Amino acid sequence: MTTDPFFHPVSGFDLPRYAGLPTFMRLPLVEPGHDRFAEVDIGLVGVPWDSGTTNRPGPRHGPRQLRDASTMIRAEHGVTGLRPFETAACADLGDVGPNPADILDSMERITEFYGRMKRNGIRPLTAGGDHLTSLPVLRAVARETALGMVHFDSHTDLFHSYFGGSMYTHGTPFRRAVEEGLLDPKRVVQIGIRGSMYDREDRDFAAANGIRIIPVEEFHARGVADVMAEARDIVGSEPCYVSYDIDFVDPTFAPGTGTPEVGGPNSYQALQVVRELEGLQIAGADLVEVSPPFDASGGTAFLGVTIMFELLCAMIGAQKAAG
Amino acid sequence: MTTDPFFHPVSGFDLPRYAGLPTFMRLPLVEPGHDRFAEVDIGLVGVPWDSGTTNRPGPRHGPRQLRDASTMIRAEHGVTGLRPFETAACADLGDVGPNPADILDSMERITEFYGRMKRNGIRPLTAGGDHLTSLPVLRAVARETALGMVHFDSHTDLFHSYFGGSMYTHGTPFRRAVEEGLLDPKRVVQIGIRGSMYDREDRDFAAANGIRIIPVEEFHARGVADVMAEARDIVGSEPCYVSYDIDFVDPTFAPGTGTPEVGGPNSYQALQVVRELEGLQIAGADLVEVSPPFDASGGTAFLGVTIMFELLCAMIGAQKAAG
Amino acid sequence: MTTDPFFHPVSGFDLPRYAGLPTFMRLPLVEPGHDRFAEVDIGLVGVPWDSGTTNRPGPRHGPRQLRDASTMIRAEHGVTGLRPFETAACADLGDVGPNPADILDSMERITEFYGRMKRNGIRPLTAGGDHLTSLPVLRAVARETALGMVHFDSHTDLFHSYFGGSMYTHGTPFRRAVEEGLLDPKRVVQIGIRGSMYDREDRDFAAANGIRIIPVEEFHARGVADVMAEARDIVGSEPCYVSYDIDFVDPTFAPGTGTPEVGGPNSYQALQVVRELEGLQIAGADLVEVSPPFDASGGTAFLGVTIMFELLCAMIGAQKAAG
Amino acid sequence: MTTDPFFHPVSGFDLPRYAGLPTFMRLPLVEPGHDRFAEVDIGLVGVPWDSGTTNRPGPRHGPRQLRDASTMIRAEHGVTGLRPFETAACADLGDVGPNPADILDSMERITEFYGRMKRNGIRPLTAGGDHLTSLPVLRAVARETALGMVHFDSHTDLFHSYFGGSMYTHGTPFRRAVEEGLLDPKRVVQIGIRGSMYDREDRDFAAANGIRIIPVEEFHARGVADVMAEARDIVGSEPCYVSYDIDFVDPTFAPGTGTPEVGGPNSYQALQVVRELEGLQIAGADLVEVSPPFDASGGTAFLGVTIMFELLCAMIGAQKAAG
Amino acid sequence: MTTDPFFHPVSGFDLPRYAGLPTFMRLPLVEPGHDRFAEVDIGLVGVPWDSGTTNRPGPRHGPRQLRDASTMIRAEHGVTGLRPFETAACADLGDVGPNPADILDSMERITEFYGRMKRNGIRPLTAGGDHLTSLPVLRAVARETALGMVHFDSHTDLFHSYFGGSMYTHGTPFRRAVEEGLLDPKRVVQIGIRGSMYDREDRDFAAANGIRIIPVEEFHARGVADVMAEARDIVGSEPCYVSYDIDFVDPTFAPGTGTPEVGGPNSYQALQVVRELEGLQIAGADLVEVSPPFDASGGTAFLGVTIMFELLCAMIGAQKAAG
Amino acid sequence: MTTDPFFHPVSGFDLPRYAGLPTFMRLPLVEPGHDRFAEVDIGLVGVPWDSGTTNRPGPRHGPRQLRDASTMIRAEHGVTGLRPFETAACADLGDVGPNPADILDSMERITEFYGRMKRNGIRPLTAGGDHLTSLPVLRAVARETALGMVHFDSHTDLFHSYFGGSMYTHGTPFRRAVEEGLLDPKRVVQIGIRGSMYDREDRDFAAANGIRIIPVEEFHARGVADVMAEARDIVGSEPCYVSYDIDFVDPTFAPGTGTPEVGGPNSYQALQVVRELEGLQIAGADLVEVSPPFDASGGTAFLGVTIMFELLCAMIGAQKAAG
Repeated sequence: MTTDPFFHPVSGFDLPRYAGLPTFMRLPLVEPGHDRFAEVDIGLVGVPWDSGTTNRPGPRHGPRQLRDASTMIRAEHGVTGLRPFETAACADLGDVGPNPADILDSMERITEFYGRMKRNGIRPLTAGGDHLTSLPVLRAVARETALGMVHFDSHTDLFHSYFGGSMYTHGTPFRRAVEEGLLDPKRVVQIGIRGSMYDREDRDFAAANGIRIIPVEEFHARGVADVMAEARDIVGSEPCYVSYDIDFVDPTFAPGTGTPEVGGPNSYQALQVVRELEGLQIAGADLVEVSPPFDASGGTAFLGVTIMFELLCAMIGAQKAAG
Repeated sequence: MTTDPFFHPVSGFDLPRYAGLPTFMRLPLVEPGHDRFAEVDIGLVGVPWDSGTTNRPGPRHGPRQLRDASTMIRAEHGVTGLRPFETAACADLGDVGPNPADILDSMERITEFYGRMKRNGIRPLTAGGDHLTSLPVLRAVARETALGMVHFDSHTDLFHSYFGGSMYTHGTPFRRAVEEGLLDPKRVVQIGIRGSMYDREDRDFAAANGIRIIPVEEFHARGVADVMAEARDIVGSEPCYVSYDIDFVDPTFAPGTGTPEVGGPNSYQALQVVRELEGLQIAGADLVEVSPPFDASGGTAFLGVTIMFELLCAMIGAQKAAG
Repeated sequence: MTTDPFFHPVSGFDLPRYAGLPTFMRLPLVEPGHDRFAEVDIGLVGVPWDSGTTNRPGPRHGPRQLRDASTMIRAEHGVTGLRPFETAACADLGDVGPNPADILDSMERITEFYGRMKRNGIRPLTAGGDHLTSLPVLRAVARETALGMVHFDSHTDLFHSYFGGSMYTHGTPFRRAVEEGLLDPKRVVQIGIRGSMYDREDRDFAAANGIRIIPVEEFHARGVADVMAEARDIVGSEPCYVSYDIDFVDPTFAPGTGTPEVGGPNSYQALQVVRELEGLQIAGADLVEVSPPFDASGGTAFLGVTIMFELLCAMIGAQKAAG
Repeated sequence: MTTDPFFHPVSGFDLPRYAGLPTFMRLPLVEPGHDRFAEVDIGLVGVPWDSGTTNRPGPRHGPRQLRDASTMIRAEHGVTGLRPFETAACADLGDVGPNPADILDSMERITEFYGRMKRNGIRPLTAGGDHLTSLPVLRAVARETALGMVHFDSHTDLFHSYFGGSMYTHGTPFRRAVEEGLLDPKRVVQIGIRGSMYDREDRDFAAANGIRIIPVEEFHARGVADVMAEARDIVGSEPCYVSYDIDFVDPTFAPGTGTPEVGGPNSYQALQVVRELEGLQIAGADLVEVSPPFDASGGTAFLGVTIMFELLCAMIGAQKAAG
Repeated sequence: MTTDPFFHPVSGFDLPRYAGLPTFMRLPLVEPGHDRFAEVDIGLVGVPWDSGTTNRPGPRHGPRQLRDASTMIRAEHGVTGLRPFETAACADLGDVGPNPADILDSMERITEFYGRMKRNGIRPLTAGGDHLTSLPVLRAVARETALGMVHFDSHTDLFHSYFGGSMYTHGTPFRRAVEEGLLDPKRVVQIGIRGSMYDREDRDFAAANGIRIIPVEEFHARGVADVMAEARDIVGSEPCYVSYDIDFVDPTFAPGTGTPEVGGPNSYQALQVVRELEGLQIAGADLVEVSPPFDASGGTAFLGVTIMFELLCAMIGAQKAAG
Repeated sequence: MTTDPFFHPVSGFDLPRYAGLPTFMRLPLVEPGHDRFAEVDIGLVGVPWDSGTTNRPGPRHGPRQLRDASTMIRAEHGVTGLRPFETAACADLGDVGPNPADILDSMERITEFYGRMKRNGIRPLTAGGDHLTSLPVLRAVARETALGMVHFDSHTDLFHSYFGGSMYTHGTPFRRAVEEGLLDPKRVVQIGIRGSMYDREDRDFAAANGIRIIPVEEFHARGVADVMAEARDIVGSEPCYVSYDIDFVDPTFAPGTGTPEVGGPNSYQALQVVRELEGLQIAGADLVEVSPPFDASGGTAFLGVTIMFELLCAMIGAQKAAG
């Protein structure tokens, strides 16, 4: 399959990477009203929103910085030789406009945007936004059937509530998603969990519901290949979601985030784990918690978009396997 | 009057300024449950909260950075010779704990904290927080009678609502305060207003209610002394509130803020305007919108605490004038 | 005159300023091939190019950072009440693609782009780029008749050559422009010149050709209004160009530039001088030498776009005066 | 054993981590005069002092930045499940006030402070300060009997003197400590030593006295578990001290320090080595050489406090093993 | 007088400013042993030393950063047309090597270095270092006769002692210099003094000895010309010293310093005050307290070297007036 | 062999590392005209030039920052015990002065400078500059006979041209070098290649000419020792060049570069690979693409000079093996 050149990114051989408006990976901007919207296979979407953040804010600025950094991405995957933009019609769909002063209103806007994508057969690759973003996205993507999930993170995000009853924060999205039937907990695996803990309430919920947690100590001891083989087994051949919190990566490699935890994977492992998703049926993916105010050098965003490129290739690989 | 040495700050001649826990101005920490709470005349309070921010977040980190910078403040005002900490019992009352995931809950917590202060006869000097902070503070301080206000800012913060109906943002606090009868609009003056504008809805509200706006062009043309004489006339001899948004100052002098506007006063004028408040009956004051993530050098916080020291001296001067 | 809403920017009341792709001032992107290109009155163009830089590079990154900062600009001028986007059809025309490895090739590309604009009746407001940018722009804009020029800068940029004969650097553009008949030296005024000097070769050229230099010491002594009145007299009522090097402003207010000179105007004066251009026939304007690698806080870019907004209003004011 | 809730830290579920005064790990502040001082088991102390620094200064600012970062620490160790604050009475004892203009006076002040702790049965966990800090601490802690030591560092700090005879610098503390009988050199192991060298004078001293040096090349070749097993053997079951210079860690993971050396352990290994201290009789520990002026992002301090949390757990584990 | 080309700086027209080793102002390096040492008229010396600093350290790194920034200085003064390097033989004499672990030893080394200069008839222009630097310099320069002094600063540096008796800190040099007969207090003027104060002990010493203090409020009210006329009167026609603490300037213009005070002169005034020294008999001058760790952008150093260039021209102007 | 003490660096025990002019590794400055030039064995040269850069500029500032960081290097290699400065006569030869406005002129200047070195028997160790630097260096070093090369990089730099025909950029030097017969492609190995790709044009050229590419995935899988054994085999016992692009290293360890690629070697591996060059006949080496504007902390430069120290030791080791 070769896509229409309309969907091919601008080359750095023709236009320097610092020139031109920074869409995701230099792809065309195809916002919902655009006349080629329905042709898109995979839509890259920004969700500039961090109202779920309980500590240091900033991910609302993530999409813009990620787009800027993404102009460094080129046409071909260096290892597999996949040329994703010639294989699937990819486009930048723009940002969902949030309401920074109203959490519920913002979640509705997000779900509506992704619902429109779903009705047009567009699979989403999201640039967050804090981790609460995944919940309204899943409400659209998993509306009909519960999904499995590969979740890279240093936290489980399975807490019940914060501050005396607040149910919607970036520490609670997957608790809500399981409760709402959007995720099948037995097909969920959480990788990289670490750090000091409040208590074991989240772990107890995971255990009671069959969610598999792979702490970072186990990750380091077993290695990427072994851990990811188990992850693929857990998720199986049915559709799944991939949620990648940048704080999965060690904070030295990804300082631009709000709740870092020491001792995580390095940048090479950060890519390897995505390459090991090959063959899964990925209904959607996100990269969240990139926080530019804490990323003065831009290195976190650059790592983030490199991960997004790997996620994109994994989504297409899955498509090919299914096609 | 000489206060109990308990209320005197630590001297930099005895303990270097980088040593010890950074309370505001090296004052004793006297949280609400402390047994000397009722003895406090002026309480310095942190409100680490920015849920009203519609653009770049960060003021939730303000109180901590302001306390750190405040260890540079010494015992005596260089111009007037006032030794505030020996004149009034001043203390750091700690922070109000906000709920970052719930605006209304946070406003209730703030109002409750300041109500307790008021019942103990403590006048507040607040370190925000974004500008929405002023509203729940005024609900406590102005509970019984509407106050006048001297408001330093580059924005009026008099808008009706944002994003299709959100009533509580950092662009709306004084609209609400006038509506709720907390401020007497005819005794309100806003100084330093500037920048490009959405529309004139806020100006129309000001005009309709008798709020005096002094744009920065007028400020620069007339000079500090003339403008402040008018401000004192407007506010008069009845109790008033002073609200100081750090974005009143030119962003080169105060880059650490979320919504800067070019062309404001310099750092010397930033202090002068406060010195010109001498004689007013200041029931409370705040310094808001200091945003550490955008203040890499800490210069904004240092300017902020220097302004707070001037506000403190002005509050005591007012007290003296009244005493 | 009210423009088509297509040409109106997105409001921050509807979409937060950190959301959406950052075009200049949130205007529509109308690149040369766009079907509404010919409707544009004033085109905002980026020239991401710094091959003429003899010291610290970086202005090639200017247009992207300026667009990002420009999302803070709103619809109405705070002082004059002008609503420029409803008065003239303004659009972001995208970037001219330079060749960073070939100075002459890049200059041809730039002149060609601006020639196309000129043929469509679009007046340019350029975001550089280093100051050599002005030369290929003038080759298009002043193709038919020599222009006057108001030039804000700390350097004259009138040198003959560098490094043993290099004729095209950011220190030589206006020497070339005078030699090529693009500028009428008797209608050129350079304001803000300062700093230590190599020698007097540039001043001698100015004197010999009738170019008026107003050093910063004279600027500070006489004040903005008096200096600008003389500037308007020099330029007169015939068409002129406005070239604004950000290093005109004191480097504390504009650190993000390659060749700063201490002791320049402050940020308020930086805006005032543009407001004083009212009434001139401005055929085009540029803001150059913003260098993001030396502007960690983004303050220089924010000042830069505020100046661009003033330039835009001045260009429209001129149009109105002529209309 | 369950400690009095007075000694429990504030939870981030109740109060956001950016709120409140930043004591170490959100523990109560129990300075020497406090009436519960004698109840403390483990005291966290800051020594804001860097007069021993021969190159880039800054560790005097370490304790304040470390306290700030430490508000991210939670109640439970993620791997062992130990809840240290419920197991031992831990408190922030404040800072020792140094005299930045007098090295000998400062050392006396430090030894006196730690002597008082020792008389009250409080084991110290110190946040430096530069590495000279360890000497006056050891003068109190090892007053009666020489201790073994596990020393993590890239330098031996065993030099005789600097600059023609200066005996007290951050390159000499352990030479002095051995000379003064505070350390038993045969029970001392130094891990991670690397970098280019002046000469072999320090190595010769180590060899002559039986100090075991494990260079980083050996560390990388053998791995954490093997190296630490040897370290435990060397130190044995008698009381020991643990001194952790943050420059043990690779400077990419810990840039905020004055004398970095390339090629050290990563952040995961930085934690692992402390976990491997389990079972040692740790009479005291320190984390030194964190230098905020060279740690713009705060990542070094965050790594530092995570190491301090591991050290605290190791000290309690040792206590339990002994109890 | 035209100097030997050996003493002329490299031109930026020949070698870009970022190339070559950064000596002060691109002058030749003529260290004390050099065979042309005795030919030097004015020697630029670095004193990388900050052991007198009681708060934030860093000025030990000043000379290196100042040399780097000084490569931007050109051959001719923009206002007076003076070409200093062709008028007097100027050279970079290198750094005095301090002992960071011993204050008294360092002071002896400095005095010895400057004594050698004095014996060779070389007038010093010093780049500090903290303000204690001025004391050992004065011990050499004013060995035979007490000097007058123009002192630009926000602090008087006239305190008796710190921390219970430390006599040599950056807050005491001029107290010592008066006591030692190096300065004639009746010919000393201190300009720009401001900020909150510990007490009035320094002011009392000034008053008792006839030192004239001009607070910044008076400076702003009277203006540069008037204040400097008085300063010249105070100092008179006998030899004097000029000591310029960079914290004289407002911290927004000069953030890279350890003890900033809000509300100082701007960058233009920072230069003007030096230009007003014309005609004084300047026996030596220094620029101190530039602290690179707090000057991320390098702007403070750039301002500092521009001030040094003005000081150099003032020293030569004085020489000319005397010649 | 013991060299003349003239060629020994200054010790940090005598002069603090922040004092004195920063020559490379504190070696004597021996510029081409110096009377001991011909005695030099290995010359450290700066090439402050980045006109070949197609994306983010900055390496023109590399030599100055590298010299500054290099003052941390000491006299003896920590692992091998080699004391390079006593084994070979090493000196800082200063910078080649480039023409930033003319690529061809700059290349001629560089080749001329290195030709002079070659005629004096001096082997070069270069601090770039961008990677185009290697081409004019090779034109001098490999004038007579094609060299082998060990090339550490994340890019092949084997492209034909950019931007419609530009032949000299930092993406093309080794394509040119092979075409010009300066390199023997069958003795060239490129290690660490990674990242997304434009196309396979460079790989095709490598394959057609026998250049061996070792992608980073293979590097990580096989390990340093195995990969470097192959590299030594490829290069063999004939003279070779070593070119080290700092972007070989993972961008977290080396952020200060213009075209980073995620997933590279860590800092320890960055040194190990050079140590494994032992025994090769190294005719010259370079370390390029260090870009200070993107290296706020200076960590990249510090890693860079540590690599240069390893390269220097490898060059001397090779010399010894050959001697």
